[in-house]
Amino acid sequence: MTDLAPALAIDRSGLRAAGSPAGVVVARDVADVQAAVRRARADGLVVVTRGAGSGLAGGAVAGAGALVLDLSRLDRIRSIDPVDGTADVEAGVITAHLDAAARAHGLFYAPDPGSVGISTIGGNIATNAGGLRGAKYGVTRDAVLSVDVVRADGSLLRLGRPTIKGVTGYDLAGLVVGSEGTLGIVVAARVRLLPVPRRIATASAFFATLEDAAEAVAAIALSGARPAVLEILDGETLGAIDALEGSALRDRGEALLLAQTDGFGAEEEIAVVTEALSAAATHHEWTADPETAATLLHARRQALPALERLGRPVIEDIAVPRSRLAEAVRGIRAIAARREVPIYVFGHAGDGNLHPIIVVDPSLDELPESAVGAADDIFALALELGGTVTAEHGIGRLKREWARRELGPEVVAVHDAIKAVFDPDGILNPGAAY
Amino acid sequence: MTDLAPALAIDRSGLRAAGSPAGVVVARDVADVQAAVRRARADGLVVVTRGAGSGLAGGAVAGAGALVLDLSRLDRIRSIDPVDGTADVEAGVITAHLDAAARAHGLFYAPDPGSVGISTIGGNIATNAGGLRGAKYGVTRDAVLSVDVVRADGSLLRLGRPTIKGVTGYDLAGLVVGSEGTLGIVVAARVRLLPVPRRIATASAFFATLEDAAEAVAAIALSGARPAVLEILDGETLGAIDALEGSALRDRGEALLLAQTDGFGAEEEIAVVTEALSAAATHHEWTADPETAATLLHARRQALPALERLGRPVIEDIAVPRSRLAEAVRGIRAIAARREVPIYVFGHAGDGNLHPIIVVDPSLDELPESAVGAADDIFALALELGGTVTAEHGIGRLKREWARRELGPEVVAVHDAIKAVFDPDGILNPGAAY
Repeated sequence: MTDLAPALAIDRSGLRAAGSPAGVVVARDVADVQAAVRRARADGLVVVTRGAGSGLAGGAVAGAGALVLDLSRLDRIRSIDPVDGTADVEAGVITAHLDAAARAHGLFYAPDPGSVGISTIGGNIATNAGGLRGAKYGVTRDAVLSVDVVRADGSLLRLGRPTIKGVTGYDLAGLVVGSEGTLGIVVAARVRLLPVPRRIATASAFFATLEDAAEAVAAIALSGARPAVLEILDGETLGAIDALEGSALRDRGEALLLAQTDGFGAEEEIAVVTEALSAAATHHEWTADPETAATLLHARRQALPALERLGRPVIEDIAVPRSRLAEAVRGIRAIAARREVPIYVFGHAGDGNLHPIIVVDPSLDELPESAVGAADDIFALALELGGTVTAEHGIGRLKREWARRELGPEVVAVHDAIKAVFDPDGILNPGAAY
Repeated sequence: MTDLAPALAIDRSGLRAAGSPAGVVVARDVADVQAAVRRARADGLVVVTRGAGSGLAGGAVAGAGALVLDLSRLDRIRSIDPVDGTADVEAGVITAHLDAAARAHGLFYAPDPGSVGISTIGGNIATNAGGLRGAKYGVTRDAVLSVDVVRADGSLLRLGRPTIKGVTGYDLAGLVVGSEGTLGIVVAARVRLLPVPRRIATASAFFATLEDAAEAVAAIALSGARPAVLEILDGETLGAIDALEGSALRDRGEALLLAQTDGFGAEEEIAVVTEALSAAATHHEWTADPETAATLLHARRQALPALERLGRPVIEDIAVPRSRLAEAVRGIRAIAARREVPIYVFGHAGDGNLHPIIVVDPSLDELPESAVGAADDIFALALELGGTVTAEHGIGRLKREWARRELGPEVVAVHDAIKAVFDPDGILNPGAAY
């Protein structure tokens, strides 16, 4: 255990816990993790595991009485088998590094959270991270075959299946994915890799209003196309990106849809996508040029950094059924007006996943009441529209109250009982996940 | 509770339990299921839930002290939303009926077990059923968003998420999928639907040996193509199909690979597949004609019926890493020779999933020792090659001993504890799933 750098007690949520953690262990191997858990238990501490600290919901925020367990040095890609389409990786591997290693074999790692260049596989597993390609390829859970977990007693256990397919016993690997370090500490995983799509095609379409763009998403859903990426950004977000990047996106419309198709028929499929959105768009175009596509997706990935320059972003992460997307957009606009706070909206429209971002004055110690109220209203809106309060960022410590409202007391009671199976003394990241 | 027809105590595994069940409830609605569970509890009975009785592992086999709960009449498709790409269905809906209803909206239900025309969504969820399209589209778990379960105390609970994406709390819907009625009784589910692929292309390739075909599977994995279907059949199975169908498949080779690509680039992709397999094949061809494709897939789906005419089939369901497929095939051949039993081999090669079928004399009351020994050897082979003893059929009551060998005592202990969370008195299908 070494002295704690304050940065190791927080993540990207802006949340702070009361007090300072008791210490930090930077694990170099699995035995270090096991020893740390046993040490914490002996010292009466709880264990808050972290990877890159890029979480957005406070799942790795540590306070008094906590031992911070840093897995970022467990960063070996143990093996990649291109015939099997699998990789064995340690938890601290940066997600983009795995993807790059896979691409050397003609494969790729499908989940791609916005944080792909800094976040770790272990962190992605903890939160069941999504990303831009979710509309076609799903989320982290869909890519994880097995996990090696250090349990609350320090023992090591492998859960899941070795092969792409397998149904022996309960899906315990799936249970651990998204459990935010509360059931066990994931130290390694076997993940699935897919063949790199032969071609990609990318469309951009601008709209007079965000609602028009949301209507276009519904039209695309009915078109028979299945874009790998379908992103939505509102005019305010485009303006912020323009300010950061020197681009002129907002001059072209008050909303942007970015769609990417991939595979052998990418061009024909993108034509179907653009045909579907054309009725609602003011203008649209598509390209098979990877450079142009990369520029467009880069702009999208700059949305959060652009907003971070304007203040402290309070990042929401709701999902609604795609058929309610336009209603969700209208509701968010109404909340912004009623609460008198700026709310920027972008997200993974193909999944019905919106990130409404409330930007607040960074000099304030606490969130202003208007922002808290607006966040509250957005959660309520998501549930009212038959959606969820978190699509891909997780519950962490930030959304506990709302998670419990979404789940209801009976389902929370099941969570408590399962938590007790894995961690009877409650030493693994208590207060996170639900 | 009504008198029990003996057929309601068994499934397609050939297994029989000791004694006769106490009775059967044919549920007409969810309230019937709740009442049946409460009645069973009051009467000291256990509950064995069944759908179509098409299970292959004995998960729905009921004996003395059991109440059989038949959900086949819970067969309403409550709603389909084409924009959301979701359907709300009751457990007793025949899987092919859901698929047909989805296709009326330009969508389809991706999981397609061989039994798709007779098995139910509830049974598919119980076993986490796979199928022919698993190589590209995954298995039942990948299609299930939420489940409505009647718990061991008769209460009704919804687990999972309403939207395509969502990470609020633990993945309890995923935990229930594949749990074979041991954690709760699934009475309804929200499942995901996908756009019907614009085109399909289908290739057939014949090989001099089954090992050559297995090597071709590895070559396809490295080709960059991602076939939706990749099926393998050995010469003996082809001969049995010929006898049933009047076809002449076996004249063309000692192994057949069937590959199907789908989507906008189906033709270009099938050309990549055939190029990859051409080195190992004696001859191959492909077609974009749906009729020809349907005939080929029909032949594949007749494999099990064809073998059922030869005797009682003992159906194995192993998966191995794709890179070990040729070794698996060699190993199975060696087992057949050593044990002096006929073993027919076909399966979903794209997933590394083989169904070695031992055919035994149907007049025997018990399986002959040679067949039991061969089955045992096949399980051991799967584990030795880094595989699993069941890829998609489930554990049921047939593979319990082997499931426990695969899982190991620590993981079995976790199963016991989770089972106790959901069903503390052990009344839900005890003896199944692990």
